[in-house]
Amino acid sequence: MPSPSHPTDGPFARRRLPLLGWILCAFSATVSAEPVTVARVESPGKVLRVSLQLDGGTPSYRVDRFGETVVDSSKLGFQLRDGRLDRDLAVVGQQSRSVDETWEQPWGERRLTRNHFNEVVVQLAERGGAKRRIDVVFRVYDDGLGFRYHFPEQPGMREAIIDDELTEFAIAPTSTAWWIPAGEPIHYEYLYRRTPLDQVPLAHTPMTLRSRDGLHIAIHEAALVDYAGMWLRRTEGQHLRAQLSPSAEGWKVRRSLPFDTPWRTLQISDTAGGLVESSLILNLNEPNVLGDVSWVKPSKYLGVWWSMHLDEESWATGPRHAATTAKTKRVIDFAARHGFRGVLVEGWNPGWNGDWVGNGYAFDFTRPTADFDIEALSAYGAKKGVHLIGHHETGCAIEHYEDQLGAALDLYARLGVDSFKSGYVCDDGQVDRRNPAGGPLWREWHDGQFMARHHLKVVQEAAKRHIAVNPHEPIKDTGLRRTYPNWITREGARGMEYNAWGQPPNPPEHEVNLVFTRMLSGPLDYTPGILSLKGRGGQAIRSTLARQLALYVTLYSPIQMAADLPEHYEQHREAFRFIEDVAVDWDDTRVLNGEVGDYVTIVRKDRHSRDWFLGSITDEHGRVLPVSLGFLEPGVRYRAEIYRDGDGADFRSNPFAFVRETREVTSADAWVLNLAPGGGQAIRFTPL
Amino acid sequence: MPSPSHPTDGPFARRRLPLLGWILCAFSATVSAEPVTVARVESPGKVLRVSLQLDGGTPSYRVDRFGETVVDSSKLGFQLRDGRLDRDLAVVGQQSRSVDETWEQPWGERRLTRNHFNEVVVQLAERGGAKRRIDVVFRVYDDGLGFRYHFPEQPGMREAIIDDELTEFAIAPTSTAWWIPAGEPIHYEYLYRRTPLDQVPLAHTPMTLRSRDGLHIAIHEAALVDYAGMWLRRTEGQHLRAQLSPSAEGWKVRRSLPFDTPWRTLQISDTAGGLVESSLILNLNEPNVLGDVSWVKPSKYLGVWWSMHLDEESWATGPRHAATTAKTKRVIDFAARHGFRGVLVEGWNPGWNGDWVGNGYAFDFTRPTADFDIEALSAYGAKKGVHLIGHHETGCAIEHYEDQLGAALDLYARLGVDSFKSGYVCDDGQVDRRNPAGGPLWREWHDGQFMARHHLKVVQEAAKRHIAVNPHEPIKDTGLRRTYPNWITREGARGMEYNAWGQPPNPPEHEVNLVFTRMLSGPLDYTPGILSLKGRGGQAIRSTLARQLALYVTLYSPIQMAADLPEHYEQHREAFRFIEDVAVDWDDTRVLNGEVGDYVTIVRKDRHSRDWFLGSITDEHGRVLPVSLGFLEPGVRYRAEIYRDGDGADFRSNPFAFVRETREVTSADAWVLNLAPGGGQAIRFTPL
Repeated sequence: MPSPSHPTDGPFARRRLPLLGWILCAFSATVSAEPVTVARVESPGKVLRVSLQLDGGTPSYRVDRFGETVVDSSKLGFQLRDGRLDRDLAVVGQQSRSVDETWEQPWGERRLTRNHFNEVVVQLAERGGAKRRIDVVFRVYDDGLGFRYHFPEQPGMREAIIDDELTEFAIAPTSTAWWIPAGEPIHYEYLYRRTPLDQVPLAHTPMTLRSRDGLHIAIHEAALVDYAGMWLRRTEGQHLRAQLSPSAEGWKVRRSLPFDTPWRTLQISDTAGGLVESSLILNLNEPNVLGDVSWVKPSKYLGVWWSMHLDEESWATGPRHAATTAKTKRVIDFAARHGFRGVLVEGWNPGWNGDWVGNGYAFDFTRPTADFDIEALSAYGAKKGVHLIGHHETGCAIEHYEDQLGAALDLYARLGVDSFKSGYVCDDGQVDRRNPAGGPLWREWHDGQFMARHHLKVVQEAAKRHIAVNPHEPIKDTGLRRTYPNWITREGARGMEYNAWGQPPNPPEHEVNLVFTRMLSGPLDYTPGILSLKGRGGQAIRSTLARQLALYVTLYSPIQMAADLPEHYEQHREAFRFIEDVAVDWDDTRVLNGEVGDYVTIVRKDRHSRDWFLGSITDEHGRVLPVSLGFLEPGVRYRAEIYRDGDGADFRSNPFAFVRETREVTSADAWVLNLAPGGGQAIRFTPL
Repeated sequence: MPSPSHPTDGPFARRRLPLLGWILCAFSATVSAEPVTVARVESPGKVLRVSLQLDGGTPSYRVDRFGETVVDSSKLGFQLRDGRLDRDLAVVGQQSRSVDETWEQPWGERRLTRNHFNEVVVQLAERGGAKRRIDVVFRVYDDGLGFRYHFPEQPGMREAIIDDELTEFAIAPTSTAWWIPAGEPIHYEYLYRRTPLDQVPLAHTPMTLRSRDGLHIAIHEAALVDYAGMWLRRTEGQHLRAQLSPSAEGWKVRRSLPFDTPWRTLQISDTAGGLVESSLILNLNEPNVLGDVSWVKPSKYLGVWWSMHLDEESWATGPRHAATTAKTKRVIDFAARHGFRGVLVEGWNPGWNGDWVGNGYAFDFTRPTADFDIEALSAYGAKKGVHLIGHHETGCAIEHYEDQLGAALDLYARLGVDSFKSGYVCDDGQVDRRNPAGGPLWREWHDGQFMARHHLKVVQEAAKRHIAVNPHEPIKDTGLRRTYPNWITREGARGMEYNAWGQPPNPPEHEVNLVFTRMLSGPLDYTPGILSLKGRGGQAIRSTLARQLALYVTLYSPIQMAADLPEHYEQHREAFRFIEDVAVDWDDTRVLNGEVGDYVTIVRKDRHSRDWFLGSITDEHGRVLPVSLGFLEPGVRYRAEIYRDGDGADFRSNPFAFVRETREVTSADAWVLNLAPGGGQAIRFTPL
């Protein structure tokens, strides 16, 4: 029983203390009141509880899970050009609602997604001064939460110039973090670092945490529209604060009212796999605004691409030019023979012959090079059911590209090029922007408000022409594919190309880390399938053969490249068969096991058949992973086509040891995956 | 490509170095040869490889897993009374074999167990001196290994007096350890400590490790027969060495040749659950030597017991005596009404009225107290299908007990008391032993050779009379239940009784830790089911109501107590129903998820029906655990009776929030377990 707070007996001395305490408290109230909880919202299954507090007019939130603090009291607010908006606020209105709906993705990891949350909107206004208003919205799910700010229409405030967002994340449980640095030149293309959370300086999202007690948390954002991307700056201990990506103007964001900020998101799960299975980011985005998007085609593609990364051919015209009519025809022939819908051709247009990195002003997006007959190739492909995939390398000359965008997309639309890859290769992580006053060019970060606008503009322009977009060196994914399903995939990670020329090439744990970090944001065009296991000059790729196949299941993308050269696929016909067979669009997705940085096994059900596919990958350590096949349809016998590491396989010494074998299985069977160091396993399950 | 080791070109200086290295090496060979690998054995699936080496005649072994070192070079050998036996050894013979067999447990966690290993026996002999011989045997499985020493018959060595075993375990991957201290007064009854492995001083086995990269290792022993129990002493870094439990004579073990030592075991798994699913310890024990053991009856029991731990009644005779004829009759009635086969009665025999702790010389095991009519109660129970369960508290007067053992067991056999619990409560972790020279009593550790002999003697004597044995404060389990299936369960852990009077009571993580440490050795008579959630004087038990039920599935024992008072079960009829229904003997067991110290979910299939039972428990943190029901029979509809934590349940503030509900499910259903802090969930699945 708790001791009574107002004792009615006991010695006099003991009775005076509470009185004294009360007086002090009353006095301090005139200076700054005790924190007052102004709103509380629980998740539907009562797993999470979010409390919104005001402390002397400064708003803050905290997150508890099963009664324990996950995010300690964390401030909310803004540094605006005309003064801080985080003080002297009072509640002027509040609304709550509950939603439980199920919606369908046109393509994705699963067909149906449940959106089940409780929401509170708290309307705040300054008690004095300009009496500015701001709303805070919390949506609380069992597996996480999102919150955002709404700047309502209001007298005396037509626009907001945001110098910084003051949102904090005071992570309570002592945690290890997996993260990549923000504010650095190579946009997102880093190996993930594993450090105590209290040693992270400035990081991109998604950042993934694991507490000492096994709680997993991922911090990210959803629906980044006309706003600056959020970086996470550690202020002290495990306290993080939003730091918006800068703009050349000095402010971070400039917007007319009314507007919403992106959602700040926390995915929270007891298992690493729970983060991957969460649909929080998509749920927090607006529904599809494009209507019928049946013209967006999940599919697999080949490319005139890897040979250039190997430095065997060149993007530039001349004797080593890869993108010639004859060479492309051969790849189209190979694609048609093996059932690939697309052929990506890089270096097809003028502009590659100079120093184009961060200097893309020579690029012409409206005509091919003289040795690349795009009209003939489009027609040749069309006869065989193969579509050219376009390519727009901007070299970071953003407005130079935007000037040609309409004509460039018109060309593609006319030729049946219904998807394209773009590129934003800069030399310092920043793109060019015209200086409206003339003078030297401005520089903008790849994830500032300027680029958030640019990327969405490209997607919208492409959508008008029924073209899908796959940006490389992109802005991070925040789930906008739900709203714009033609934003089909992107890069934004240290991809396979680093295995051609990167120092070091990607270590095996990188791809495992991607699943639990980068992949939480959305599809990744990693470009797997290098069955030759060799980069430039014969550099060894840190993978077994079977692992290359498993990547098609573990690293989700609705368009997946078979990135190696056709002649290498001819040399590995048995393994290539899985790449031919694997689906890319899914009815369902489940994570069977996994630990951040260690290993992961994912199964996905094909949307267009009753087949299931399994992919499992490990870090540099071999693994024995028992799995249940309970995901299979009960009572049905399946043929399992197994592509596994052979005895003694090892990414260092014996990467090509490989076995393809077939067995009959049912959902009741126990199964053990043996993964070699740096290895993997891929399985196709087909009902008999 | 690796650089060639014998360059044939290049400057002269570079060519000289290899030569110099060769000369040094050849020179050192005359002093002590380079380590020579004398045997190598791989596991059937090529997961593990064990190498046996000789370094200047000293044997050592190492363990690699998928090509990476798990146990670095670790010495083997003995300190014998007549000189060390670990030097100047040479191989004089070697045999290999492979075994793949499946055997059936008469009762257990699963009906069928596969025993699939590769074995090597290496016969060693001293090259000089006494030319003593010793064999080392390695059995290597995919999920671990066991090795032991064999002292063969040989001229000049009739017996071995072992002053210590020099076996080392040099654990390679940086690991966290869960362990309890050895050489301390309270035999095994500790909370598990979690420390870096390099901070463990002296620990009991099983000790469980988890590496930074997610590899789990458990060190233990199998078939501890006529030998001293193995403690683990850390010598430096992560290097451990066997330290045998002492004996009063000064040596650790004295045996006539030929004999085998117990197996030293390493279970190795990528998942925590893999340790629990491993059958290594049982596989390394000898098959059943008792023949038909259908008289060993897995079953549930009640007791005249908890009231004494609550200090509401007493073991001693007098007005508070619990074990009276009348009171026991009432418990028999309750047992019969609710389908329990057994009723344990403690305090039934004379000897409890003095200070019996560590001083059990007043105990009489051959007759009851005057107020306990054991004849009438046995007959009364027999009519109702209820068997009294006997009890022998020795107070550590071992030979005093042994003197009465035959008569005591004859009494039980005559009365139909076909199982009994024994007790070894000492005040300093050591038992009494007669000094053969007269003089003061000797003291023996509870797990030295003396007690290893004692416990097996009791089990063998009981087996002759078809009686099962359940020792408390026992010697640790090393899988001898395979050989002697009447050794049905034991304590050897900080059990439920600590929740009555322990300071502190068991924290929620304790029971999770038990699953991944103590339970690896074998069944545990934890005595769950305290639905009142109260100990002595109302001390709160750190559990929710639903968790008490889940313990019946998570903490395996073929005999399970419903430890609370009948009147408390009357107060919790809904929850009690699970205790009535839950099975105790299993066809199959699977671990669905789990992390050491965090949470665990286990499902088991009843051996005598098509029912499955699920138990899930967590530590002090609430958890959301998605599980697949793929273990269920495909295509069958089941009624799931769910016993779960209610909304807002919390072991601290709201432990009784509890829901019992029923749903229809199939193997294809997804399922999410919501566990409150300190909570749990139990489910019975019955085919419709």
